[in-house]
Amino acid sequence: MITVLTGGTGGAKFVQGLVRVRPPEEVTVIVNTGDDLACWGLHVSPDLDSITYALAGVLSRERGWGVDGDTFSCLERMRQLGAPAWFQLGDRDLATHLRRTALLHSRTLTEATAEIAATMGVKARILPMSNDRVETRVLTTQGEMSFQEYFVRERYRVPVKGVRFAGAERVQPAPGVIEAIRDAEAVLIAPSNPVTSIGPILSVPGIRQALRETRAPVAAVSPIVGGAAVSGPAGELMKTQGLPVSIAGVAQAYQDFLDVLIADQRDRTYAGEVENSGVQVAFANTIMDSDPAKAELAGAALAAVMPARAAGRTR
Amino acid sequence: MITVLTGGTGGAKFVQGLVRVRPPEEVTVIVNTGDDLACWGLHVSPDLDSITYALAGVLSRERGWGVDGDTFSCLERMRQLGAPAWFQLGDRDLATHLRRTALLHSRTLTEATAEIAATMGVKARILPMSNDRVETRVLTTQGEMSFQEYFVRERYRVPVKGVRFAGAERVQPAPGVIEAIRDAEAVLIAPSNPVTSIGPILSVPGIRQALRETRAPVAAVSPIVGGAAVSGPAGELMKTQGLPVSIAGVAQAYQDFLDVLIADQRDRTYAGEVENSGVQVAFANTIMDSDPAKAELAGAALAAVMPARAAGRTR
Repeated sequence: MITVLTGGTGGAKFVQGLVRVRPPEEVTVIVNTGDDLACWGLHVSPDLDSITYALAGVLSRERGWGVDGDTFSCLERMRQLGAPAWFQLGDRDLATHLRRTALLHSRTLTEATAEIAATMGVKARILPMSNDRVETRVLTTQGEMSFQEYFVRERYRVPVKGVRFAGAERVQPAPGVIEAIRDAEAVLIAPSNPVTSIGPILSVPGIRQALRETRAPVAAVSPIVGGAAVSGPAGELMKTQGLPVSIAGVAQAYQDFLDVLIADQRDRTYAGEVENSGVQVAFANTIMDSDPAKAELAGAALAAVMPARAAGRTR
Repeated sequence: MITVLTGGTGGAKFVQGLVRVRPPEEVTVIVNTGDDLACWGLHVSPDLDSITYALAGVLSRERGWGVDGDTFSCLERMRQLGAPAWFQLGDRDLATHLRRTALLHSRTLTEATAEIAATMGVKARILPMSNDRVETRVLTTQGEMSFQEYFVRERYRVPVKGVRFAGAERVQPAPGVIEAIRDAEAVLIAPSNPVTSIGPILSVPGIRQALRETRAPVAAVSPIVGGAAVSGPAGELMKTQGLPVSIAGVAQAYQDFLDVLIADQRDRTYAGEVENSGVQVAFANTIMDSDPAKAELAGAALAAVMPARAAGRTR
């Protein structure tokens, strides 16, 4: 069993690649829910949706989120009715949120996620990081806001001073999460934002400890290429945590549990800096601009992490 | 001020006609909410919606319900996700239910209805019959079911044994309803099903009494033409109440408060039967197959009801 920790966009592409090189039944995906929000009274889980849509083959390639070919008739009308309309929910996408919200009256988020994924034909196991509420709060020069307010509404243009995971100290990992890390053949950290995609997962009590203690080798794919994030605000957010915006910064974020960092070919010059923190480095093409490229990166990550296990953990 | 009591389809056309012959600011519409249902966790009010859409000019002419030109992408996906999909919610229509459901957390149905209508540019006043729950239950040979289950899911093909308005004894009229009947210049009963569209309104304690006591003349437009309902199951439902399926049956349903019945030209032969029950009859073309026809019928109803007032009530 391969276990992946992931956020939305980059992670969604990565898991699409992974199920091309491994049977989906052998893949468990632990997903950030720190971005979850209530929109129009519905429970929206942006990262769970991106992963589910990606694995169901309906994720919009054009946008990187939402359902391929979706329309926005309801949204347009909600705007006319005076409802907040900055979070773009498509008509087909909406069905997922309606269904999840209804299921949550009698089921946990883990169960609702599994049921939705199953009806969409997804064979990999998708687990929310927790069934309890952790909210990623971004402290900006314009005040504190939720991650989606910062990311979507403000288009991450407001300067950030810090990030916190509200409620994290009180929550538990969702059922199966610790076991998936403990019993994995390998654990992969997807090329997601280390601060606001992987950070919330690591804030759940017990998960970071499980990553430190697992016998499985742990590899991370760097979302930073050539000193900048491939997409999104990862660079700016890493700075707020005192992390260099480089593959060395990514290694540093995970150094207490990371065996191998998969970095882009272009970042070979930083290899020494990463290795100084006790993390091995492997190089690959990390730009997932096609389905074969996604599979190639996933394959490279698996190839790099397996010798790490064979060699035995040194931590 | 003209006050109209109405259900959905036929009533929606009638109020469209009325606001062509009277300024909409002078029209109050009291609407059946006995068909309201929870669908996908949303509060759906089919008759409030039909009236609101009709007055906003967006009611589908083709279907007679929902928003003109609407799409059904969310519904299709809900079906794939295993949700009940017999109640057809369009993508644009959905916005109304989402908005209403959210507003109902902090507002009454009266307030939510007014807010939605205002954002849609509706100038007439739309009042739900009550802010409390009355549920029209249809007792059929296949068991008891909600009105929409009978009407939409079963397409009113199952034989009906009776109808009841669950909860009616415990509810109050919505604010403004009694006053709108008491202080009206005229009260019009739209050509809606007397049993399951107007019946629920009359089941709300105080409303029937207000209709008996108002000084305003009261007219009803018959939904029965030539011994059958213009559309829907009104005929079959009237039989279950021991009412003849004719304009005489309609007059009988309302005879304790009705001054004038507006009947179709084709039903002149029944005039004596209606007059025997102490109700005047006026004849008009009641088939509203165009906007001018709707306005003509509304004008005929007003013309017939005003002399009724001038002549003084005899009840």
